[in-house]
Amino acid sequence: MEIPDSCRISTAVRVMYFDTDAGGVVHNIAYLRFIETARTLLAIQMGMSFEEIARTGIHPVVTRTEADYKRPAKLGEELRIEGRVTEWSGIRFWVEFDVLRAADSVLLVACRQALALVDVSTGKPVRLPAGFPASLSLGR
Amino acid sequence: MEIPDSCRISTAVRVMYFDTDAGGVVHNIAYLRFIETARTLLAIQMGMSFEEIARTGIHPVVTRTEADYKRPAKLGEELRIEGRVTEWSGIRFWVEFDVLRAADSVLLVACRQALALVDVSTGKPVRLPAGFPASLSLGR
Amino acid sequence: MEIPDSCRISTAVRVMYFDTDAGGVVHNIAYLRFIETARTLLAIQMGMSFEEIARTGIHPVVTRTEADYKRPAKLGEELRIEGRVTEWSGIRFWVEFDVLRAADSVLLVACRQALALVDVSTGKPVRLPAGFPASLSLGR
Amino acid sequence: MEIPDSCRISTAVRVMYFDTDAGGVVHNIAYLRFIETARTLLAIQMGMSFEEIARTGIHPVVTRTEADYKRPAKLGEELRIEGRVTEWSGIRFWVEFDVLRAADSVLLVACRQALALVDVSTGKPVRLPAGFPASLSLGR
Repeated sequence: MEIPDSCRISTAVRVMYFDTDAGGVVHNIAYLRFIETARTLLAIQMGMSFEEIARTGIHPVVTRTEADYKRPAKLGEELRIEGRVTEWSGIRFWVEFDVLRAADSVLLVACRQALALVDVSTGKPVRLPAGFPASLSLGR
Repeated sequence: MEIPDSCRISTAVRVMYFDTDAGGVVHNIAYLRFIETARTLLAIQMGMSFEEIARTGIHPVVTRTEADYKRPAKLGEELRIEGRVTEWSGIRFWVEFDVLRAADSVLLVACRQALALVDVSTGKPVRLPAGFPASLSLGR
Repeated sequence: MEIPDSCRISTAVRVMYFDTDAGGVVHNIAYLRFIETARTLLAIQMGMSFEEIARTGIHPVVTRTEADYKRPAKLGEELRIEGRVTEWSGIRFWVEFDVLRAADSVLLVACRQALALVDVSTGKPVRLPAGFPASLSLGR
Repeated sequence: MEIPDSCRISTAVRVMYFDTDAGGVVHNIAYLRFIETARTLLAIQMGMSFEEIARTGIHPVVTRTEADYKRPAKLGEELRIEGRVTEWSGIRFWVEFDVLRAADSVLLVACRQALALVDVSTGKPVRLPAGFPASLSLGR
């Protein structure tokens, strides 16, 4: 199945001091903040804005993270984060992210995350809506 | 006025990679996490546990931070954080913290924070309870 | 003395989940990340790029932070951070930041930071360069 | 092969406000800080102290993280992090971590990380020392 354009995102970030550690490069945890920003903007683009989350009480929750650290990013570098929905079924979908050095598009970190839509009133996942992934909107 | 022992706290932390930055020393923001841990344990000791906060809907909120960075802490060092309530009146109280290098008690960071007790249902501060600072308990 | 345009900066950020805490609003420490991003981009604009820092071994270090927390920012809100150099003499300069809610320009956090230019090889501050604040460039 | 006791660690942490987000529970990234603290103390216990890292210029680097988020931790809860080296060969070893709610030992997050020992002067991984995992000491 073709993945709609609304299921792809590209964001940019510049590496700040607070992203790095005494090893001189970006700390492994900091990349997950970069990825969360991309993932949140992707969710908004797919129809799940913060307002929609507040209205429905259903919000996307990360259930698994896989991250491969290939090359380090350095202080001051511009990074590009490219994300896309890749798989979905029942109550779960997967999103993949590449963190690239903007100057030469070298892949630094590859990440996959599984997400579920959780109803905060019950703590239970709900089924993906019928139109998924063309829309994350829950039509409630 | 004498400050009761319940209004003093001492905590310890060891500097981890995620506390440092590419400058090779602890990042200035990381000290505020160390201080928050000390402050939270101090609040619990004074009678304002997480359960009490949940029960009353009133929680301590930082309204001002002043931090003087004197000497840098390094990766792997043991630090000691000493905190104490120093002033209070009406709706506000002050807590002071020293971040010391444990090995030789050298002062690295001195910090003062003003706090108010905020009722989350209204977003407004409430008056400090009668027994303050001997107790932060709100007796509701 | 007039403050040159190169000594002013304005940045924007959208509040992400990792910026908030269980109190439902932005955590007090997260604002200091927003401010660091603005401060770093301001330093670059004034002539102290990451490359310049690497070349000279001299980098700006925060020696004091004062932050007044006036109103909370919420998840998903767009914020604007406005910074400017306000005072300087000898080995120290001050930068002020306002964190504003972008929608209505309401002031959420006001912050002042003192900085020194520290030579990492000696750990000692150096005098501000002659042209400061028109330029932070050290001409080495 | 039997895993020596020096290759196991157990640490404890109490959930602070800065570990949580507006969803009311611990943010998925915060668990990785808890795990890093356990991993660092495990490395020290195995012979790779911060001093040893500084002396040899070789330090452990995370090359892959897998984390399964099973149940959320809440503000104020005591957590226990249990870690152990589970596999090793050539230039890579794996460490597994369970993040448990201390009160009832319920598993909240299961995490596996692959690490390599990287020589910072070359940026290349080195072979695991002969005595691994009984000792991470590099005998240089």
